[in-house]
Amino acid sequence: MISAFDHPWLGGLFADPELAAIWSPDAQLRNMLAFESAWSRHGHLAGLWSEADGAAAADAIAKVEITPIDLAEGTARDGVCVPDLVKALKSQTGLSAVHTGTTSQDVIDSATVISISATLDHLITRIEALKMQMIALDSQFGDMPMMGRTRMQAALPITVRDRLESWMLPLADHLDRITELRPRVTRVQVGGAAGNRAKTTPEMVSAVAAELGLLDNPKAWHAMRDGVGEFASVLSLISGTLGKIGQDVCLMAQQGIDEIALAGGGGSSAMPHKQNPVLAELLVTLARFNAVQLSGMHQALVHEQERSGAAWALEWMIMPQMVQATGRGLTAASELTDQITRIGQS
Amino acid sequence: MISAFDHPWLGGLFADPELAAIWSPDAQLRNMLAFESAWSRHGHLAGLWSEADGAAAADAIAKVEITPIDLAEGTARDGVCVPDLVKALKSQTGLSAVHTGTTSQDVIDSATVISISATLDHLITRIEALKMQMIALDSQFGDMPMMGRTRMQAALPITVRDRLESWMLPLADHLDRITELRPRVTRVQVGGAAGNRAKTTPEMVSAVAAELGLLDNPKAWHAMRDGVGEFASVLSLISGTLGKIGQDVCLMAQQGIDEIALAGGGGSSAMPHKQNPVLAELLVTLARFNAVQLSGMHQALVHEQERSGAAWALEWMIMPQMVQATGRGLTAASELTDQITRIGQS
Amino acid sequence: MISAFDHPWLGGLFADPELAAIWSPDAQLRNMLAFESAWSRHGHLAGLWSEADGAAAADAIAKVEITPIDLAEGTARDGVCVPDLVKALKSQTGLSAVHTGTTSQDVIDSATVISISATLDHLITRIEALKMQMIALDSQFGDMPMMGRTRMQAALPITVRDRLESWMLPLADHLDRITELRPRVTRVQVGGAAGNRAKTTPEMVSAVAAELGLLDNPKAWHAMRDGVGEFASVLSLISGTLGKIGQDVCLMAQQGIDEIALAGGGGSSAMPHKQNPVLAELLVTLARFNAVQLSGMHQALVHEQERSGAAWALEWMIMPQMVQATGRGLTAASELTDQITRIGQS
Amino acid sequence: MISAFDHPWLGGLFADPELAAIWSPDAQLRNMLAFESAWSRHGHLAGLWSEADGAAAADAIAKVEITPIDLAEGTARDGVCVPDLVKALKSQTGLSAVHTGTTSQDVIDSATVISISATLDHLITRIEALKMQMIALDSQFGDMPMMGRTRMQAALPITVRDRLESWMLPLADHLDRITELRPRVTRVQVGGAAGNRAKTTPEMVSAVAAELGLLDNPKAWHAMRDGVGEFASVLSLISGTLGKIGQDVCLMAQQGIDEIALAGGGGSSAMPHKQNPVLAELLVTLARFNAVQLSGMHQALVHEQERSGAAWALEWMIMPQMVQATGRGLTAASELTDQITRIGQS
Repeated sequence: MISAFDHPWLGGLFADPELAAIWSPDAQLRNMLAFESAWSRHGHLAGLWSEADGAAAADAIAKVEITPIDLAEGTARDGVCVPDLVKALKSQTGLSAVHTGTTSQDVIDSATVISISATLDHLITRIEALKMQMIALDSQFGDMPMMGRTRMQAALPITVRDRLESWMLPLADHLDRITELRPRVTRVQVGGAAGNRAKTTPEMVSAVAAELGLLDNPKAWHAMRDGVGEFASVLSLISGTLGKIGQDVCLMAQQGIDEIALAGGGGSSAMPHKQNPVLAELLVTLARFNAVQLSGMHQALVHEQERSGAAWALEWMIMPQMVQATGRGLTAASELTDQITRIGQS
Repeated sequence: MISAFDHPWLGGLFADPELAAIWSPDAQLRNMLAFESAWSRHGHLAGLWSEADGAAAADAIAKVEITPIDLAEGTARDGVCVPDLVKALKSQTGLSAVHTGTTSQDVIDSATVISISATLDHLITRIEALKMQMIALDSQFGDMPMMGRTRMQAALPITVRDRLESWMLPLADHLDRITELRPRVTRVQVGGAAGNRAKTTPEMVSAVAAELGLLDNPKAWHAMRDGVGEFASVLSLISGTLGKIGQDVCLMAQQGIDEIALAGGGGSSAMPHKQNPVLAELLVTLARFNAVQLSGMHQALVHEQERSGAAWALEWMIMPQMVQATGRGLTAASELTDQITRIGQS
Repeated sequence: MISAFDHPWLGGLFADPELAAIWSPDAQLRNMLAFESAWSRHGHLAGLWSEADGAAAADAIAKVEITPIDLAEGTARDGVCVPDLVKALKSQTGLSAVHTGTTSQDVIDSATVISISATLDHLITRIEALKMQMIALDSQFGDMPMMGRTRMQAALPITVRDRLESWMLPLADHLDRITELRPRVTRVQVGGAAGNRAKTTPEMVSAVAAELGLLDNPKAWHAMRDGVGEFASVLSLISGTLGKIGQDVCLMAQQGIDEIALAGGGGSSAMPHKQNPVLAELLVTLARFNAVQLSGMHQALVHEQERSGAAWALEWMIMPQMVQATGRGLTAASELTDQITRIGQS
Repeated sequence: MISAFDHPWLGGLFADPELAAIWSPDAQLRNMLAFESAWSRHGHLAGLWSEADGAAAADAIAKVEITPIDLAEGTARDGVCVPDLVKALKSQTGLSAVHTGTTSQDVIDSATVISISATLDHLITRIEALKMQMIALDSQFGDMPMMGRTRMQAALPITVRDRLESWMLPLADHLDRITELRPRVTRVQVGGAAGNRAKTTPEMVSAVAAELGLLDNPKAWHAMRDGVGEFASVLSLISGTLGKIGQDVCLMAQQGIDEIALAGGGGSSAMPHKQNPVLAELLVTLARFNAVQLSGMHQALVHEQERSGAAWALEWMIMPQMVQATGRGLTAASELTDQITRIGQS
């Protein structure tokens, strides 16, 4: 339980159970099996096996019993879980219309993209909900006066609306970014051993993509990581906006400034009277965390040759954490907004 | 001459004179004067002064003699160059229809956005040119056999085309990214002292934007830095793609691998026979550099209140360097492509 | 299971069970209880309670039954686990000679430092073991010829020893760094509510430190995070050295270069004949991961006032991961070294 | 003038002329000539040439006229400036007892280390001076009451001294870090073409080191970058401490908090009455900047084989900027401290 997202007590603060489920080992395994099943089912479109054999294998794969921990030993040895997964599929089904023509990276990247696609759906829903909360805040408090502050100094009076707009308007742009990003990142990964689709056909790729709810595409993107790099960038842009909200709330909640009142807020072990703006601080933490991680996702763009084990594994270490940080940022921002009982000069 | 981009001899390797000119102090000053001039000219649309007074000031500002170094002392004192710039404008023109209703951040951000807009134009031209070079490489060498390599090991034979496509296809996506980004980042900045456009009108903002070739927008984005954060992200995505090309070329040029032949290549002070793949290495360096810097641009998203001096100055330190690294990456990739005399198995 | 270190199958590759145990929630809780117990036991030295009452509470704390998940709800509410922990201690023991005069940060930071201290011990043992393995490699292969390679090009012949020394010599410097770092980071944290030790005495602090095996110090370091920042720096220096070894091995293992032979190596799902240098790649991944994370630990140095919730939580998210990455790097480097059956020209 | 450190007006805020001079192209060139001269003078100790020939060359090198821009073309071609520098030395002196047995990296790394050594001297002087200023502040204001603030909330009263100690105490640790780091980083670089000192002797290395004021060492460190990585780490630790000071001052200077009074402070173009805490903000900016850059210096630890052009050049891009940011942080902190006319509750 090294990660704050998985940690029994830190998880109370950091976890995003909904997105965690989408990126859980169980879900990843399910996604990989969905890929292998689709591969078997549509293999006849590339002459890999007969339609009947493929259908039988696809159905059998759906019934295979395998648990995440079964793949640990193979991953330790091979650096990826797929060789052992395929062995298990073949031995448990006793069928051979399995995996031929595809490769580890196809399975893992396509499985990841299924999770990315579901993540984008959740982000949209949450961003829209947060926007609505902000609009409600604006209806209630928008006309109230507030001091505009520049360079940490009182400048000139503004209204609460002016401040709220700096929280709200970027959300609309983030929705546009997600819409534009989606077709560049939710692409099925099909390349085969050396990434050149040597053993498949466009028809088969289309059918696999369709079954998985992913986009068809004319080429494997195995060594072109700009799609996932852009995904990470959008995640960090979102959490950056939320971090600005959090920083503002922390500053507004200071005694002597008193521009916001929050119901709830964290207690202190030494000073029971204190109300700490825990969720606002969390938004700052998550924004800075993602700004750090983003660097790693962009380092991983230097993905040599047809597959870089080193750069690819760096994505595995970082991307799911960025998803969690962004998702939790959105739920925390929503909770924090709900806590606001007054905004503007008291 | 602390920066490799400005350095007398390192500049031979790192500099991008064309983009350096767009971001030079002279250009920045010119852009700021353009903003102040437009502000004066259209101030009558907000009742700041008469049309005639505004026109006179706008014309006079165009003739003002000021050099970058004149602004050093004021910047040291004020943290921004604009207060002294405005003083100089007023004293040199003897006119008062100057700057009222706007503020430092409007001037500097709008000036920056003029540079960003010109940068995007150059990036598009260069990416398209690089794509054409890649297409030409493909025509010449695409059918040649080559070993596909995964996880730093020989996998299965592919063609040169397969490798080239991993270099080329992201370029098209980068062009789409630039197109989508442009309306989110080339927005005029007009906010005034506290960012709420207290002393201007939509008509005036539109006129100022139009004169500067920037996009109109309904609100100041002074404390919403997602546009410049996204700009930085796209820069790093581009340089990441180029870094992958560079890493591949370095690996292909190894003795014992010999999958590429380059005309030119760097000499060694100790081993005159050596041909170092200098430009390919440079692409890797620039990609890693930008992946590092990107983190700073995203840290700057935590931009508190109506203006964060600390976060804003972090952008000043980093953004121009990222532009240079990306621009130089594109010229270096183009030069490197020109050096290729053979690609594929010798 | 968001983290690769905790993940059921990725853990096969990434996990370091020994260091994971030191940083596990159970161990963290045990360390926190050790602190609270020591605090109770020595509180009489500051007149907080009688020696007998303190001893009774200390003993009772040792028998308290609490599990990590019990602290989730409180952490969600308070941003730290300590307020609920203290409540549990008081209610389960029925005693009052508990926690008075100390605060959340004292408990958590001191608990962390106990883990850091144990980590340093393990790092030393592992680095020394790796050094011995390198010396053995050198005895066996040191005199063999090898091509020296600069800028990815063959330069001039060297010996295997020359290459090995670039792997080995930094290890000795890392041992020195750990020795020098230790007194700056294994300091007990005692500050109290506002960090000024208002309710304790030097004698009490010394006694608490001694019981916990930590260093006494004259002042709380609650808002001075350079100790943990330096700890993170040393971790990344170590993993950086290992990343260089990994990158070298990947390059040496290429067909056509063949400067190293490895027993074992990872299989491929599509190409059973392939032997991928999985552990060498992993070393590169872990080095780049830590180089990314380090930035976050240094961002957290900007720790405002007497306690920054935002900066502190950023440490929680990053530090344990850096420990794992460094520890796993050392075990992986050791396993990789064991796999080497030949080094030098074949 | 891409860098804020070199920029005509931003330089007013960001520049550190003293450290800039130590890292200027002129100084770098002077350091490289000093190395070449020492190499010639002591080459007889390795039998490279006669003592007389070496002395003649050493003297002649001292009189060579070469300017930084002369090395641009060669750097563009070779990726390093040294091949052209050596050509110029040979042609201008007409002597041949030049450079044989050494290589580009020896020249550049040793020149860099001369700058690092001088930098450490300056950092020590400045840190000690800042400590003295803090002690003076403490004498004047240390007993004054102040609100202790945790998690951005008023906690309990402390004294100004308590706050000052969190600014001051890390400075002493930084001095220790510099002392411990120095022998690991101020080592002469001598390796020769492939880094194995094939053409030199220990006596010659010692003599060269002594002449340059650097430390002798038994092995080239050309591919072991932990020394410069640690140097960068210490720089960022220092600027991190200063960033904490800056953040605190920004927060203390807020209206409604009013815990500090500053003489001077930056003006605003729109609100002449405002006093912005420009230097305090700058400290935050520089700390975050260095925390970002540090990641790049640690990425460069993955320095493959006997010389990585890509990783080495990344150091060139980043290290001098980190020095400037740290140096300027110290002068800015000193200026800021001088501006303090009151600290503690007003």
